[in-house]
Amino acid sequence: MTPERYQRIRAMLDARQTDLTVCMENVHKPHNLSAIVRTCDAVGVDHVHAVWENYQDEIRRGTATGSQNWVKVHNHENIDDAVAAMRNSGMQILATNLSESAVDFREIDYTKPTAILMGQEKYGISDKALSLADQDIIIPMVGMVQSLNVSVASALILYEAQRQREIAGMYQAPSMVDKTEQNRILFEGGH
Amino acid sequence: MTPERYQRIRAMLDARQTDLTVCMENVHKPHNLSAIVRTCDAVGVDHVHAVWENYQDEIRRGTATGSQNWVKVHNHENIDDAVAAMRNSGMQILATNLSESAVDFREIDYTKPTAILMGQEKYGISDKALSLADQDIIIPMVGMVQSLNVSVASALILYEAQRQREIAGMYQAPSMVDKTEQNRILFEGGH
Ligand SMILES: C[S@@+](CC[C@H](N)C(=O)[O-])C[C@H]1O[C@@H](n2cnc3c(N)ncnc32)[C@H](O)[C@@H]1O
Ligand SMILES: C[S@@+](CC[C@H](N)C(=O)[O-])C[C@H]1O[C@@H](n2cnc3c(N)ncnc32)[C@H](O)[C@@H]1O
Repeated sequence: MTPERYQRIRAMLDARQTDLTVCMENVHKPHNLSAIVRTCDAVGVDHVHAVWENYQDEIRRGTATGSQNWVKVHNHENIDDAVAAMRNSGMQILATNLSESAVDFREIDYTKPTAILMGQEKYGISDKALSLADQDIIIPMVGMVQSLNVSVASALILYEAQRQREIAGMYQAPSMVDKTEQNRILFEGGH
Repeated sequence: MTPERYQRIRAMLDARQTDLTVCMENVHKPHNLSAIVRTCDAVGVDHVHAVWENYQDEIRRGTATGSQNWVKVHNHENIDDAVAAMRNSGMQILATNLSESAVDFREIDYTKPTAILMGQEKYGISDKALSLADQDIIIPMVGMVQSLNVSVASALILYEAQRQREIAGMYQAPSMVDKTEQNRILFEGGH
């Protein structure tokens, strides 16, 4: 491994936000999956969750998420399992939802451990997912279309989290990634 | 037209930001074009520009942009014509560019009349476009991937503009759309 590459991976590890994640509920278009995972990497999210209820194994194993070696995708059979995993890590669970009762996404404190649930392209988030969440959030819109593209919506929320965490010094703090994992990534990244 | 629909269109017209636009330079994947136009509508951008140098008429006339009746797409043969049109409207021209000299996109004052140039999916923005712009801007990234998806990048910048304009009261000001145009849209929207 060149010294430049070593430095690059080290800097990435230092910036990782292990207590921030996204859960995609039946998001299934490859270009959306890939754009979301790419944005996760860009803001330092290293683990994401995906629930696949009605989709086939081709998508689950698809290159869309598989190609992104630097972000680990955890697959779940259903939303209960996914939310349980995130609650276990002490995260607040936010559901993106186009409802009257949802609060503006910028009002949330994203410096807390946070999981953001994103809904399926056509049908949005399930009632089950909504009932499991602590809070509904919405991105304000003033036009005629009813919703944003799901990868766009994910990015707006993740970058609001990035903005708040940058101000809070969370990208300058010691790496949140545990030592064994850091060594594994540095080792594999060199090959 | 129902009173609800009339109110919906009126509210949309009141929120339109006629002095904010996007110019897509050879962006050609239909899902990206459509996501960008959708985000434009959501923040109140009513006119966008597209430069098509190497792509065929199928894309130009594609449903991707054509389906979005509420946002007008202006096609240009080359970037000079596109930038000239935007300069004519007194806009600052910002080029999104992954360079060392680009400033953080959040440092820009988007309450000024503003055009944002977005680059092609694979090759990014052209040298010509860069030379015509007033300023390069970049969205910070702390991961291993080199760039964001173009519709994601557009949305992050447009919503930063929305945030600043909201604070400045620009969404509460009298409609920026001229009266004749308002009447035309209200008329057509009823059919
Ligand atoms: C295309 S939308 C689904 C629209 C669906 N008809 C509905 O009513 O939920 C796909 C996903 O993108 C996200 N999304 C889109 N627009 C959003 C907004 N304005 N605020 C919050 N999330 C949004 C949500 O996760 C949503 O489930
Ligand atoms: C996939 S990128 C093109 C990458 C290309 N290899 C390059 O070096 O420019 C497509 C477009 O998305 C926008 N973009 C992507 N990531 C960006 C970032 N971090 N900051 C600003 N614009 C970005 C730019 O408009 C860019 O031209």
